[in-house]
Amino acid sequence: MKKHLLSAADLSRDDAELVLATAEELRSLADRPIKKLPALRGRTVVNLFFEDSTRTRISFEAAAKRLSADVINFSAKGSSLSKGESLKDTALTLEAMGADAVVVRHWASGAPHLLAHAGWARSSVVNAGDGTHEHPTQALLDAFTMTRHLGSLDGRRVAIVGDVLHSRVARSNALLLTTLGAEVTLVAPPTLLPYGVEGWGVETSYDLDAVLPKADVLMMLRVQRERMNAAFFPSVREYSRRYGVDARRMATLQDHTIVMHPGPMIRGMEISADVADSERSVIVEQVTNGVAVRMAVLYLLLGGSQPAIGGDDA
Amino acid sequence: MKKHLLSAADLSRDDAELVLATAEELRSLADRPIKKLPALRGRTVVNLFFEDSTRTRISFEAAAKRLSADVINFSAKGSSLSKGESLKDTALTLEAMGADAVVVRHWASGAPHLLAHAGWARSSVVNAGDGTHEHPTQALLDAFTMTRHLGSLDGRRVAIVGDVLHSRVARSNALLLTTLGAEVTLVAPPTLLPYGVEGWGVETSYDLDAVLPKADVLMMLRVQRERMNAAFFPSVREYSRRYGVDARRMATLQDHTIVMHPGPMIRGMEISADVADSERSVIVEQVTNGVAVRMAVLYLLLGGSQPAIGGDDA
Amino acid sequence: MKKHLLSAADLSRDDAELVLATAEELRSLADRPIKKLPALRGRTVVNLFFEDSTRTRISFEAAAKRLSADVINFSAKGSSLSKGESLKDTALTLEAMGADAVVVRHWASGAPHLLAHAGWARSSVVNAGDGTHEHPTQALLDAFTMTRHLGSLDGRRVAIVGDVLHSRVARSNALLLTTLGAEVTLVAPPTLLPYGVEGWGVETSYDLDAVLPKADVLMMLRVQRERMNAAFFPSVREYSRRYGVDARRMATLQDHTIVMHPGPMIRGMEISADVADSERSVIVEQVTNGVAVRMAVLYLLLGGSQPAIGGDDA
Repeated sequence: MKKHLLSAADLSRDDAELVLATAEELRSLADRPIKKLPALRGRTVVNLFFEDSTRTRISFEAAAKRLSADVINFSAKGSSLSKGESLKDTALTLEAMGADAVVVRHWASGAPHLLAHAGWARSSVVNAGDGTHEHPTQALLDAFTMTRHLGSLDGRRVAIVGDVLHSRVARSNALLLTTLGAEVTLVAPPTLLPYGVEGWGVETSYDLDAVLPKADVLMMLRVQRERMNAAFFPSVREYSRRYGVDARRMATLQDHTIVMHPGPMIRGMEISADVADSERSVIVEQVTNGVAVRMAVLYLLLGGSQPAIGGDDA
Repeated sequence: MKKHLLSAADLSRDDAELVLATAEELRSLADRPIKKLPALRGRTVVNLFFEDSTRTRISFEAAAKRLSADVINFSAKGSSLSKGESLKDTALTLEAMGADAVVVRHWASGAPHLLAHAGWARSSVVNAGDGTHEHPTQALLDAFTMTRHLGSLDGRRVAIVGDVLHSRVARSNALLLTTLGAEVTLVAPPTLLPYGVEGWGVETSYDLDAVLPKADVLMMLRVQRERMNAAFFPSVREYSRRYGVDARRMATLQDHTIVMHPGPMIRGMEISADVADSERSVIVEQVTNGVAVRMAVLYLLLGGSQPAIGGDDA
Repeated sequence: MKKHLLSAADLSRDDAELVLATAEELRSLADRPIKKLPALRGRTVVNLFFEDSTRTRISFEAAAKRLSADVINFSAKGSSLSKGESLKDTALTLEAMGADAVVVRHWASGAPHLLAHAGWARSSVVNAGDGTHEHPTQALLDAFTMTRHLGSLDGRRVAIVGDVLHSRVARSNALLLTTLGAEVTLVAPPTLLPYGVEGWGVETSYDLDAVLPKADVLMMLRVQRERMNAAFFPSVREYSRRYGVDARRMATLQDHTIVMHPGPMIRGMEISADVADSERSVIVEQVTNGVAVRMAVLYLLLGGSQPAIGGDDA
């Protein structure tokens, strides 16, 4: 693997499979009473969040702590950035304080790349979501979840449905899943498909009902109303009628097909409550897998000093 | 004990006495230079705070860290709840991330019950204050402090004075102290007594001076002006004249009577500075005892993997 | 050393040299993969911040965690102080919860002294910046950085340039550096020199170009526009023409002279980008040294239970 994880495109198929295999090993910890390994003891992971995302921050924080790293949370609100400090100087400062990894969430697409290219000698940068651009660890946890249910993703059909335009999750998944051999179809109204999507190596469709019977995986996206111009915002009723999944639509899926959602869900909008809570839904499992995948990423980037797993806690 | 601690009413007398005995054992740690035990190593405690309460959050955080648990703080401001996520989905998410205990503070009465009944398989919920409803660990630390000064609470008379209407502390104390055999009298102006207080199994009085000479414990409550309608708010002078404790009133107490306050105090309102700092005041000790009691609660709910206390740190 | 570190004036020359020597020992940790020692295991350090300062908070947090202390962050916004609690009661509360050290940042000059004199029996108070008054650990890390480059500071000439009026950094450095035998010159426009500066035991000058050729250390201060009355605020162009350092001015320095800045920098205002990134600049190194110096301060104040350094992590 490279030193940073900025984009799902940074991962070769071998890289991605190494992360998934390492996560599989670490995943078994979740069933132990003592969910902790000494692998990253004495290392420091900084969570640098320029945008609120409690869910992602907690997932990384739990992952780092289970590997015995020290975690420092840095919410950029009210930080020295507001005193005129540049992102470059923030980067140099965190490196100088001894951060081994910086997990960065930023409202601006591309910010993690800027950080990573600020001339660091040691720290690794992990992109935890930048603007509408990428969220590579989300794609890894999604691929990991699919693999646990379906085995190899070669030739598997994944439908990603909804607000693709504003979704870093969709983009990172499209990149990673095609690397892993899956066939991805993006299903969205024309206004919610991004410009240039033809270059992603995926199919697109406006017709959810046509796609459902062939899908092995149905991944619903959150409608990001907060990023939308009000004039373009579809009504809840109209949106869910055309692009939401409910019991009726779920009935058209194949028996083995799983339903995913990156969370947080808006029940009744893109997904009905009975689908979210159904046996096909692996949404809660995605959360558990997120911690395992982030442990694997931190472990592999930081080159843990001891075997990732073995006995209990040291 | 049950799996959750939602209400002081959840505790049988045996349960409560087990917490107090465990806290007594753990309390001795406070006098050691190394105040740490390995009992909850590898467990994760999430502080889920929907309402600011630095004092309570720090107390739980210190308690969990002294038992070597990992602590994740989650201030719900700016969380995915604002993106439309339900309390149920937050609960499922925290459980899925591997939280062993969730300490929840919420502005809405009943929120911790909702969380606890969201279908969790493993996490324990501890109510750290919900609306004007309950604050059971506060009642436990108060009972613990009384016991250390007075021995058994059987037949002891406890006067709880002030803004009972808005006080989760008063309600939880009334429930717990009567379970432990004490006789509780709530002293407040009629407008600050809650509807239905007759069902609490306590006495009520409007006359502080009549109650003082018989009390073994005098517990002053903070006046919660922020919860009051301005029209009902008593003037400071009038309130403290009728329901505040000062040196003159303190002189009418029995020799062994202790003065308590859950903090934060408004000196000069419900309690004068000379009473707060007097030898009868156990207010600072309550804070120290709060950490020990919360350690006991976390330890008992999570079924620590090793004896609570023994040698030094492992 | 005394029990608290409130002012650089609290440090005798012996005290200051002990801190620097301890920091030198701890500094070597920064080059190890595992940057952690068990010296303060089981101790609790509270970061009590009434003013945002991510940089300083993270530096103290990293320092405490590398010594294996438990760290509790307490941002005073939304704390019980807003419910009417006094600073004294906050102090008593933190002591009662078992804080071994309280690192306090406050917008009011003198607040750490108030905390330290609230009658604590055990906790140490470290001033992490109070108003425009003092920032003693910044002065220690600056002195430490100078010593690493120049050896003994006896007779060395240090020019501190810019917004001295609002700078706790300048005041603490003036106090500490003269204690260590250096000759300090404050260079600033008359409106940015504080009243009573004659008593600091330093020289003053309005003429940067006259001072530069003789300086062994050039320390640039951040212009604190947020503390300035708009009417007094110099234009960026005028300020940087008279009191900023750029390549032209840097060329007049002696070969061994180093350039420092406490950060965060405003590039193009008090310092040009080429100077900030030049080989003379030790600005990034100051950040690394800050962690080592704060480790030394916490270690010495808390009387760590084991030798500060030795083998690897325990």
